[in-house]
Formats: sequence, C-alpha cells, structure tokens
Amino acid sequence: MPSDVLARLTEQLGDRVDTSPASLDAARADKSGFAADTAPLAVVHAASVADVQAVMRIATDTGTPVVPRGAGTGLAGGANAGGGEIALSLRGMTRILEVRPDDLLAVVEPGILNADLNDALAPHGLWWAPDPASRAISTVGGNIATGAGGLLCAKYGVVRDAVLALDVVLADGRLIHVGHRSVKGVTGLDLTSLFIGSEGTLGVVVGATLKLRRLVPGQSHTIAAVFPQGVRAAAEASAAVTAAGIQPAIMELMDAASLAAVHAMLGLDAPSAGAAQLTVQTDGPAAAAEADAVAEILRSAGGEVAVSHDPAEGERLLRIRRSMHPAIETLGTALIEDVSVPRSALPAMFDEIARVEREYGIVIPTVAHAGDGNLHPNFVFEGDEVPDRIWAAADDLFRAALRLGGTLTGEHGIGLLKRRWLADELGDDQWRLQRDIKGVFDPQGILNPGKVFA
Amino acid sequence: MPSDVLARLTEQLGDRVDTSPASLDAARADKSGFAADTAPLAVVHAASVADVQAVMRIATDTGTPVVPRGAGTGLAGGANAGGGEIALSLRGMTRILEVRPDDLLAVVEPGILNADLNDALAPHGLWWAPDPASRAISTVGGNIATGAGGLLCAKYGVVRDAVLALDVVLADGRLIHVGHRSVKGVTGLDLTSLFIGSEGTLGVVVGATLKLRRLVPGQSHTIAAVFPQGVRAAAEASAAVTAAGIQPAIMELMDAASLAAVHAMLGLDAPSAGAAQLTVQTDGPAAAAEADAVAEILRSAGGEVAVSHDPAEGERLLRIRRSMHPAIETLGTALIEDVSVPRSALPAMFDEIARVEREYGIVIPTVAHAGDGNLHPNFVFEGDEVPDRIWAAADDLFRAALRLGGTLTGEHGIGLLKRRWLADELGDDQWRLQRDIKGVFDPQGILNPGKVFA
Ligand SMILES: Cc1cc2nc3c(=O)[nH]c(=O)nc-3n(C[C@H](O)[C@H](O)[C@H](O)COP(=O)(O)OP(=O)(O)OC[C@H]3O[C@@H](n4cnc5c(N)ncnc54)[C@H](O)[C@@H]3O)c2cc1C
Ligand SMILES: Cc1cc2nc3c(=O)[nH]c(=O)nc-3n(C[C@H](O)[C@H](O)[C@H](O)COP(=O)(O)OP(=O)(O)OC[C@H]3O[C@@H](n4cnc5c(N)ncnc54)[C@H](O)[C@@H]3O)c2cc1C
Repeated sequence: MPSDVLARLTEQLGDRVDTSPASLDAARADKSGFAADTAPLAVVHAASVADVQAVMRIATDTGTPVVPRGAGTGLAGGANAGGGEIALSLRGMTRILEVRPDDLLAVVEPGILNADLNDALAPHGLWWAPDPASRAISTVGGNIATGAGGLLCAKYGVVRDAVLALDVVLADGRLIHVGHRSVKGVTGLDLTSLFIGSEGTLGVVVGATLKLRRLVPGQSHTIAAVFPQGVRAAAEASAAVTAAGIQPAIMELMDAASLAAVHAMLGLDAPSAGAAQLTVQTDGPAAAAEADAVAEILRSAGGEVAVSHDPAEGERLLRIRRSMHPAIETLGTALIEDVSVPRSALPAMFDEIARVEREYGIVIPTVAHAGDGNLHPNFVFEGDEVPDRIWAAADDLFRAALRLGGTLTGEHGIGLLKRRWLADELGDDQWRLQRDIKGVFDPQGILNPGKVFA
Repeated sequence: MPSDVLARLTEQLGDRVDTSPASLDAARADKSGFAADTAPLAVVHAASVADVQAVMRIATDTGTPVVPRGAGTGLAGGANAGGGEIALSLRGMTRILEVRPDDLLAVVEPGILNADLNDALAPHGLWWAPDPASRAISTVGGNIATGAGGLLCAKYGVVRDAVLALDVVLADGRLIHVGHRSVKGVTGLDLTSLFIGSEGTLGVVVGATLKLRRLVPGQSHTIAAVFPQGVRAAAEASAAVTAAGIQPAIMELMDAASLAAVHAMLGLDAPSAGAAQLTVQTDGPAAAAEADAVAEILRSAGGEVAVSHDPAEGERLLRIRRSMHPAIETLGTALIEDVSVPRSALPAMFDEIARVEREYGIVIPTVAHAGDGNLHPNFVFEGDEVPDRIWAAADDLFRAALRLGGTLTGEHGIGLLKRRWLADELGDDQWRLQRDIKGVFDPQGILNPGKVFA
C-alpha cells in the first residue's frame, strides 16, 4: 500500500518526490524540539498548484495523511511528519505573481520567505507588516497557516490583519479561492480568517493576496530602559506607556535571566543582578516626541533610560533582544512557550512565572512583546525529551494565563505541543464545534492528522 | 403547534413575548425596502442571556425558526421575520459591562446602539472605530452580525478589525465564548471572525468584547473638491490620493445625480450640471500637512478645491454626504447597492455604472467610500416591489463588479436580497463548504433560514 502511494506520486510528480534519508529525516521535525518517531513516506517538493492538487487527489484516493510544510521553523510541532505520511513542502513555490502599489496588495505563492518578499517590496515603497523574529527563515504560507505575529504587531497588526484572499487546495484536490481583492467585503462566511491559523488542518494554502502597507517615512527612535528593581517594575512601566495612549512600533521586555544569557553570549558586561530591560521603538510622524514621552514615563517608573535618535544605534540596542533565541540555546534545550494576556495583566503574569519558578525549582527566562501582552517563557532542560516536571510547570503556567483572561498561544499555534490543553481553553462545546468544522473540510481526516484536534 | 410554541415562550418569558400587531408588523421588515409576506409568530424582547437561551431551547424542541434582530436598520433583508418564525430582538440588552482603558477594551451587550456606546466611551478618551452611517440607529450586535463598515473604515478598520471575543448562544441554547481578551491569540480556529458577518445564521451574539482605540488627538481638516468633468475624474483623483501614500480618515465620493438630489433636498444652489464631488478628511499628527497635500493632488486632477482647517466648517462640508440617504428617499423607493472593488478599479466601475444606466435607460445615483473602493449605487423606482428591469440592471452591475476583482457586498451583507448571487461570487465548491459549516452550527436549520444560504 505505501509502495503503491509512492508509485502513484512518482508517476505524476517525478523527481519532485524525494525519499532521500536526509530529507525524510528533516521532515520529522520543526524548531519546537519535537520530532516524529519515524520518518514519513516521502517529501514532495511541490512546484505548482497542480502538483499540490495531484498529491491531495492521491492522498484522498489512498487515505494517506498529508502534512503541509513551509520552512519548518514552527515552534508547535505542526509541520512534523511521521510514518505513513506525505510531507508536502511548499517551500519551492516562491513566485511573486503581482505587486500593486495602487491597491496596496501583492499576490504570492506560499513558499516565499517573509524577508525575501519584503526585500522585493521595498523598492515599491511597500512592506507586508507581519514580522516574526523568524522572518528571514520562515515562509509566508507558514506565517499564514500559523497566524504569525512579531515585534511590530502591536502597532501594525498580525497576519490576520494582512491577508485579503487565499487560494486553497482542499483535501480532495479541489482548488477554491476565498476572500477578495477589494479592501472590504462581507459576502458569506469569512473563510479567509478561518484558514489563517488553521495549521494545515483545513487545506493547503497555495496562493495569497496580501494586504500591504507603505513603508513608514522618517526614522525610528529607540529607548532602552534598565530596571534594577526587576521584571515586575519593567512590566508595570510598559503598561504605563500603553495607558498613556502612546503606541510604540516595538516594545520588548526581557527579564533578568534572559538579559544575562544574551549579555554572556554577546560577550557584553554582565547586567546588574536581577535587572530587567525594556526596549521601545517609536516611528511615524510623531516618532521623536513619542520617544521623549516614553523616556519620561520609563524614568518616572524607575528605569535607567537611554534614548537614541540614531537608527544604527537603535539597531544595536535591539540586537540584544534579537539575540534571545540563540542565547537560550546556549543554556540547554528550550521549550519556548507563548502565552498571551491582557496588557494590564502583564505584571500579574510575571508574578505567576516567579511562583512557578519557586514551586518547581527552575529558572524560566522570559521575554515579552509587552505592547500586546504576549510572553515567551523559556523552559530550559537537558536532553531531547521534555521532562515531566517541566510539562507540569508549563501546565501550571498555561492555567495561570487562562485565569488572567489570556490564551495558551499568542502566535505559535497549537500543533502537537498544546493539543492536550486546547479543550481547557475552548471549552468542550466549542472544541467539538471546531472539530466538526475540520470534518467539513476533511471528512477522511487526512490533513495533518493528530495536530491541533486530537 | 404555533399556539404550543407561543404558550411555551409565554410560560418562560412572560411579557417579553410580544404579539401586538404593530410589533409583529414591524418585525417583517428592515430598511432594505423588503418585507416578509406575513407576520411572525411573536417578537421576543430578550432582556438577558438566559432569555435568549430559553428561546433557542424552545425553538430547537419545536423546530421553530428564529430570526435574530438588532435595530432592524439592515439593508439586505436579513432581520425580516415571517410566518411561523420567532423574531428574537436583542435591542433591549444595552448594558456596558466593562470599560478598560488600560487594555483598550469594552465588554457590552449586543443591543446597545453604536452611537450610545461611543458617547459612553468618549469620557474615557476611547472610541469603537466602526462608524456605519447608521451609527445613531443601529446596534453593536447588528454591526457585528453584518460585519459593518463606515466612513472612517479605510483608515480605522471595519467591525472585523475591532472585536476580540464574542458570547454566542447556539441553535440549541448552549452558550459559548469565542476569542480572548488578549490582543493576540491563535488557539484553534478563528470562530470570532466566522461569527462576524454571519448575519444571524450561525448563532445569536449575546455579548461582545470590543477592541477600542484612543480618541485621535488634535483636530481634523476637511477638503471638498468639485469636479466639473464628472465622476470619472473624481474617482481618478481619489485613486491618486491613495497612490500618493496618504491615508485620509474619510474620502467620500458623490456622483452628479447624488449631489443634485442632496442640494435640492437641503435647499442649496444646484451644483453645475454633471459635476461630482470628493470630500476628504485628514486627522492625526500630520493632519494639516496631509490636507494641504491632498488639496494639491485634487487641484492637479482638475478639482475646484476648498480646504477647511475648522472642524465646524468641516462638518458642514460633510453634511452634504451625510444627507444622501434621505435625499435619495425623496426620489422614490431605493434599492441601495453595495459593491466593492479594488481601489484602482473605481474609475472602471463608474464606467460600468454609466454603461448600465445607458443600456437600461435609468439613472443610478451613486456614492462611494472612495478610500476603500466600496460603492453604493442607488436604484430608484416607484412602488414597493423592485421591478424586474431594475433587478436585471443590478445583476449586470454585480457581474461587472466581480469581473473587476470586486465583491457583491462591501458592508451590507447578503441577507435575502443577494442570496441568488452568492454562488456566483463564491463558486459552487466554496458555497457548499459554507453551507455545510452552517450545518455544523445549525443542523435543524432554524437560525435565520432562507437568509444568505438558500
Ligand atoms: C528563531 C525563531 C523565532 C521565531 N519567532 C516567531 C515570532 O516572532 N512570531 C511568530 O509568530 N512565530 C515565530 N517563530 C515560529 C515560526 O517561525 C512561525 O510559526 C512561522 O510562521 C512558521 O513558518 P514556516 O514556513 O516555518 O512553517 P512550518 O513550520 O513549516 O509550518 C507551520 C505550520 O503551518 C502549516 N503550513 C505551513 N505551510 C502551509 C501551507 N502553505 N498551507 C497550509 N499549511 C501550512 C504546517 O502544517 C504547520 O502546521 C519563530 C521561530 C524561530 C525558530
Ligand atoms: C441610513 C442608513 C445608513 C447605513 N449606513 C451603513 C454604513 O455606512 N455601513 C454599513 O455597514 N451599514 C450601513 N447601514 C446598514 C445597517 O445599518 C447595518 O447593516 C447595521 O449593522 C445593522 O444593524 P442593526 O442593529 O440594525 O441590525 P438588524 O438590521 O436588526 O440585523 C442585521 C442582520 O444581523 C442579524 N443580527 C442582528 N443582531 C444580531 C445578534 N445579536 N446576533 C446575531 N445576529 C444578529 C440579523 O439577523 C440580520 O441578519 C445603513 C442603514 C441605513 C438605514
């Protein structure tokens, strides 16, 4: 049977069907630290919509599971493909089909990297706002399938705010187009939003009409504030910035453990013990005035503040935040978490993290997109398997986020890692509705089975 | 059987069950000009979530159709209730349960009028951005159920951009909560977006967590430009504003027939024959400079331009646009259409309207939210029934909008009026998927049957 599937794939797709051990092995994992126990049947490198349709028709005929895959940078295990499954890679479909500066839209294939797209848009004076920290290594299709966010999202929106229409291949190989090229449109149900963040469980995104912005004119201004009192003070200061009605482009918070790890990795002088840092960037017509106002607020909140009106110096200040991921990797294996809470609950969430650290005797280096209340607590451990004690601590943290009116995942998704908590957040009734919607799109259950709903 | 339903409703809901002839008659219609042939069984004035649950339980037990209703200002016939149906009015549920300036959110009941909510938010320095021209007379729940837009939407977004979470009573009376209080969240499928614009076909919205904005500081500036060359020149001028990278708060276009009708109704001097008008408002930190730039663009495009930096004078200029609806009513019965096209296609869409006017020998006064490409062509006729010739002309117009990459409805919805065109836009495959999703929420087909999917 598997050999039959392979034969049919090869017959129709030729050398785009890849069964080399290295490719099969790579398709078992994303960047979550999780990997499928066994390798998939094949990796298919789709080069066209017709390729994707052919794969899905064969999959439907033979009841073979398909795992769509972009660049495999996901942090939830969503793209991991295992025994008996087809890993369907969209990474090779990288064309930009249309850029329309007048309509502020672009039509692209799903495999283009976020940063490559933005490099191509810049000469038109345009950009696609979603900017995950992984923008240089993740695909637009993966960004859409996960509903990605990023540093600039508090001001400029997440993926959900930046997609007009999608071309989607359904489980049985049919192609549909959802959404519209016009800015507005309320014809029927909003399936575009339903596909965004659906993590490959409803269909394969093979094309996207993206809503663009014009590049923000003028230069940005950067404020870095160190809070010797610690992370709670920094969190309160960030809440004070929001409460003052200022909308920074970026507002990133690093706790003491994160800051220390990054300073060590970059070979900088160690920060004073227990100090947390807030890095804020303002842009747009009022950037300079806003930077001064932010500095004033952070100073009254007890921060040691440095303001830079020079973009290069600003980049240097932000580099500390951007080095977080590699710095954490120097400490051990990391389970990167992603809870999100109402902005006012940020200080309380840090209290909860401190409590979990105490109760479980662990350190949880944490960074937060403070402008939108999204935290990334990093659970660091030795070895490949997440120890039970770490899962117990993470479970405790998730429940704390839900109690504070928050959510399990602000931007990374459910995938494999959080499916056991999904019903806790949604409630059983909504969980069942969502699963039944999945059933409408995928009655045979061949699209990314075991992910999200399981 | 109907008497049994009425008895059960009355037993549980007492005098909130209204069978007065005037109420039953009013529930037959919205503002579309369409009305059900016969009156519904009863109007239930829900005062609480429990009331809504009780109605839906009785409806499920007895297989009785329910038509949710806000203020009945809809323009698609969506709230019209007929023989054998229960009209479920949410208009009495008007409480504001929470306002959180720090988290920029409010939790409200669905029946509050949009303008009443904004009056209550203003003292907090906050507003809810969706501003349909009907804001003084339509409910927040109705705005959500239709996915409403408005004048300010090109800059500040539509309803879809302004809702964080919803409380929804399902067809069988169960209550679910979808979405979250945090800015970000990608837990499972985005059911919040699915309910927005679902026109009462998936569930009854009984509560909403709204995403607020801070009031924009500073004053707005208004530019009015008359284009003696006519509407095509005005449309091209508006596209030039967008193409220049300026984002006005408001950019409204009126063609010659609209302008003449409003001038006549307001007793102003008649505009020069064939002249169209563009009214633009800028706001925010760069408002004054943007107003001057807009004026310059409109002048080079052949407009006779007046700029006002005085808000009261600005309101006077906008009054002409705001008087459109009553002015059209002086001409006869109006079928108010709502196509939306990519901004660059606005001139071409006006060409199509001119063609339809010629071919059918009719005049179609048209206004447009030029900032987002949403047009309201008004088909005016005598009497209560839309004549076949008018439907044929409207059909021609819809197909032209679709050819230009647009959509049937930018903000009013499908309801009764456009259900026969729905599959033309969605395609049969997507239409069937949408109907099957409706089936997941409403297996018995009792929620607003005959609307949207029929
Ligand atoms: C260093 C680092 C930093 C990161 N920073 C951020 C951040 O700031 N914000 C953020 O949101 N995420 C971040 N991530 C996570 C990750 O980059 C995002 O989730 C990204 O959107 C995944 O894109 P991808 O192309 O790698 O998708 P993959 O990992 O290949 O796939 C992700 C999910 O989407 C599905 N999928 C992929 N492509 C398609 C398609 N075309 N059609 C249907 N389904 C598809 C897969 O099945 C899977 O479920 C980071 C990751 C790393 C390693
Ligand atoms: C003068 C005038 C100007 C207008 N201008 C605009 C405009 O600029 N932009 C715009 O978008 N619209 C406009 N409209 C149309 C209309 O006001 C909007 O569609 C509005 O959102 C409807 O709100 P409502 O409370 O009147 O809803 P209703 O007309 O009562 O209902 C509309 C639909 O929503 C459903 N519904 C209502 N409440 C609920 C609920 N709580 N739960 C589930 N379903 C519900 C109904 O079943 C129906 O399908 C205008 C109308 C008029 C008369």
